[in-house]
Amino acid sequence: MSVHSLEEILHPGSVAVVGASGSGRGGGFVTPLQKLGYRGDIYPVNPKYTEILGLKTYARIRDIPGPVDYVISAIPASQVLGMLDDCAEKGVKGVHLFTARFSETGRQDAAELEQEILRRARSAGIRLIGPNCLGVYYPAEGLSFEDDFPSEVGRVGLASQSGGVAQDIIQSAARRGIQFSKGISYGNALDFNECDYLEYFAQDPETDLIMMYIEGARDGKRFFESLQRTTAAKPVIVVKGGRGGSGTRATASHTGSLAGSRQVWETMINQAGAVSAANLEELVDYGAAFYLLPPLTGRRVGIAGGGGGSSVLAADECEEAGLDVIPLPAAIREELKAQDSPIWDWISNPADMSITMESNWPIGEMLEMMARNENFDLLITFIHGHFRGGREKPSAAKFLEGYHLSELEGRPTLAVLEELGWSGAGTDEQTWLSELMKEVRARLTADRIPVYPNIRRAARSAVRLTDYYGRRESR
Amino acid sequence: MSVHSLEEILHPGSVAVVGASGSGRGGGFVTPLQKLGYRGDIYPVNPKYTEILGLKTYARIRDIPGPVDYVISAIPASQVLGMLDDCAEKGVKGVHLFTARFSETGRQDAAELEQEILRRARSAGIRLIGPNCLGVYYPAEGLSFEDDFPSEVGRVGLASQSGGVAQDIIQSAARRGIQFSKGISYGNALDFNECDYLEYFAQDPETDLIMMYIEGARDGKRFFESLQRTTAAKPVIVVKGGRGGSGTRATASHTGSLAGSRQVWETMINQAGAVSAANLEELVDYGAAFYLLPPLTGRRVGIAGGGGGSSVLAADECEEAGLDVIPLPAAIREELKAQDSPIWDWISNPADMSITMESNWPIGEMLEMMARNENFDLLITFIHGHFRGGREKPSAAKFLEGYHLSELEGRPTLAVLEELGWSGAGTDEQTWLSELMKEVRARLTADRIPVYPNIRRAARSAVRLTDYYGRRESR
Repeated sequence: MSVHSLEEILHPGSVAVVGASGSGRGGGFVTPLQKLGYRGDIYPVNPKYTEILGLKTYARIRDIPGPVDYVISAIPASQVLGMLDDCAEKGVKGVHLFTARFSETGRQDAAELEQEILRRARSAGIRLIGPNCLGVYYPAEGLSFEDDFPSEVGRVGLASQSGGVAQDIIQSAARRGIQFSKGISYGNALDFNECDYLEYFAQDPETDLIMMYIEGARDGKRFFESLQRTTAAKPVIVVKGGRGGSGTRATASHTGSLAGSRQVWETMINQAGAVSAANLEELVDYGAAFYLLPPLTGRRVGIAGGGGGSSVLAADECEEAGLDVIPLPAAIREELKAQDSPIWDWISNPADMSITMESNWPIGEMLEMMARNENFDLLITFIHGHFRGGREKPSAAKFLEGYHLSELEGRPTLAVLEELGWSGAGTDEQTWLSELMKEVRARLTADRIPVYPNIRRAARSAVRLTDYYGRRESR
Repeated sequence: MSVHSLEEILHPGSVAVVGASGSGRGGGFVTPLQKLGYRGDIYPVNPKYTEILGLKTYARIRDIPGPVDYVISAIPASQVLGMLDDCAEKGVKGVHLFTARFSETGRQDAAELEQEILRRARSAGIRLIGPNCLGVYYPAEGLSFEDDFPSEVGRVGLASQSGGVAQDIIQSAARRGIQFSKGISYGNALDFNECDYLEYFAQDPETDLIMMYIEGARDGKRFFESLQRTTAAKPVIVVKGGRGGSGTRATASHTGSLAGSRQVWETMINQAGAVSAANLEELVDYGAAFYLLPPLTGRRVGIAGGGGGSSVLAADECEEAGLDVIPLPAAIREELKAQDSPIWDWISNPADMSITMESNWPIGEMLEMMARNENFDLLITFIHGHFRGGREKPSAAKFLEGYHLSELEGRPTLAVLEELGWSGAGTDEQTWLSELMKEVRARLTADRIPVYPNIRRAARSAVRLTDYYGRRESR
């Protein structure tokens, strides 16, 4: 009997959804396959229906006429063993157990049933994803557990022990210009565990960057060694859930994980050369820098586009994050003087927008000078969006025109796009603003410029990038 | 000759705007007075106009027929001395110099002119706000430097050395349920300085909470002593701009301030019992907790409403911020058991919403139980807003119904309202969502529940509150 690899079960010729229904979560596993364009056969299985969402529906898996490669189980825990017998008969390779209420309940009988399911699956040569998880999002194959996940194929591999966390990451990453090769929610990690997912993404030619949300490791030593090997070639960003006493209590009731102490994990993640993030916001922030920017080791930053106070705080925040806010290079001052600029001896780094306005000077010219100057390793620019009602409403192209962002000659650039709006704005203006900002963000990320809501988050993300590549370079 | 106090010049019977024009910044000082309902006389002054925004316009201040108490100067620096002579003749008490390009340019002649202006004002008994600043927002008097500042009167006093920073704070605070007694942007602090503003707010019966953005202190010793005295009665939240080497360079070109080292300032702010914030986001976050919550010293937190993974991370983040995430009290477990709840032995603190959903149980019932239990000092609840297109669109009241927030018996509560939306949402749905969230936020803050976009920011804000009141209690 062969043991199927994760790669093998991720390319099913057909999918059965057991416990499917016309609506709710049961239907929720059928419609994503339809919406993301899964090309194989979809077989809803439920004795109460003859048709679901336009598809012929079967009472049991063994009633399905053709072969079944992959099964999504949305039936109660008590029915899983019987279903596995059907799967064995049909030669199913992989089963995703959305089904929950196993070891995470803390109850002895539920934990024993979970172990019996593993034994039964192993004896039938069936691999398991889960239980207690949302399963697989693989846009190139049209596999998904949400209707509204992007159909765009990207190059980030995500393994998340929590389904809700996977949803949050995929949706919020999409708004930041990050797309996924595969995203897998794996719950209680009964068969495939965190090591399997990590090692899979490590060798996956479709994946350049790995994101993980882990509550507990089934095999800590193997995980550390895999992480160390992987980070030599691909960055891995890890959020560890269950870092303290109360979080550890919470992982037990969530995925039945033994979380381990914060110190052990932090040390392990850092020693392995991975990037540690404290929460999903940091994960997506750092991910945007790794995904959109080139490898970067220098920390000398040029900052432009803020007002007076925000330039002062930008310098503080960048310095505190670990960037080097160098004085404005003499060559730029000379160039400004040669152009008869009235601000040549006043402007500095950060370049305060309210000073450059003195001479009606687009901030993009300062950005271009900084980009050409070899003293800067990276740039951060504030993108302003303070409008007032009744004035002209620019297009996204017009809005970004003054920044000359396509002329920055490949100098890695991060953008700070602060919260917009004015208290007097009506619904129409708010709608217009929100559409404009969506388009502005899309244009920036298409230009490989990650977007942050404040300078601290931009600076901290840039530093994670330079730390990682600096470490790799010095290996 | 009397020396007018700040209080005296903040209640002018008439305001002249010198350098007024029909549009742009010059007009921008006239229209806010009109829009916020200033009840005194408004006199635009500009030799190029006979009427501005429906108001008779004078060539010079001395041409104004009635008395002039307060002058806003939007004329070039070179014309200020002449204008002050006019002010002296008219008996003006206070002048706000929006006019800039003085010591902040780093140029000798500009710095000398600034000093000459101070001498001229002093000899005429005129007090100065600024120069290089946006001046006064005082909604109860109808004074403002922005058309779209809220007309609601609140109890926060803001002194900001930067005008742009003052705008950002006032606008973003408004979205978080914080209103101001007065907000003053004071720029180069030539006459009134940070100590004057702090001491003014300390004794101001209209102000309960003080926010400051400071780049440099003109009188560090006096500031420390004032701060120490003030924090014994009113919380003061301070953002110090110019904390490092590069930030200090930036303060010089922004407000001509000598910033001083980070260590000196941090030590000073903490020793004085004030609350230190690193940036405006923290300032407004902490401000929302201080403004909306009662004094609080206990740190035992009950958390409810998150999913599995977010409950795990919530426990971690709260613990790391300094809160005490206690196990679920036995009394609550017993109460659940007595109600035949199937989750009585599984649910924990944080109370994982996906577990409570097992029994169709509104999260509000758990919140109520936590609120009634004396083991909890405060509560944090996640407010969920994940909708899908095509489903029912609830009202804000319906949306909040399951949380029983008005029945929490005065237990201090913070809300986490995470970013909303789904990638498939169209413009109409986004507009509806954004309106709904605005209304939800307004209802929460009206119930004295501060709202945060993530648990970390909520937890850190709560800890600043308990730190401050704990310190005051132990004095």
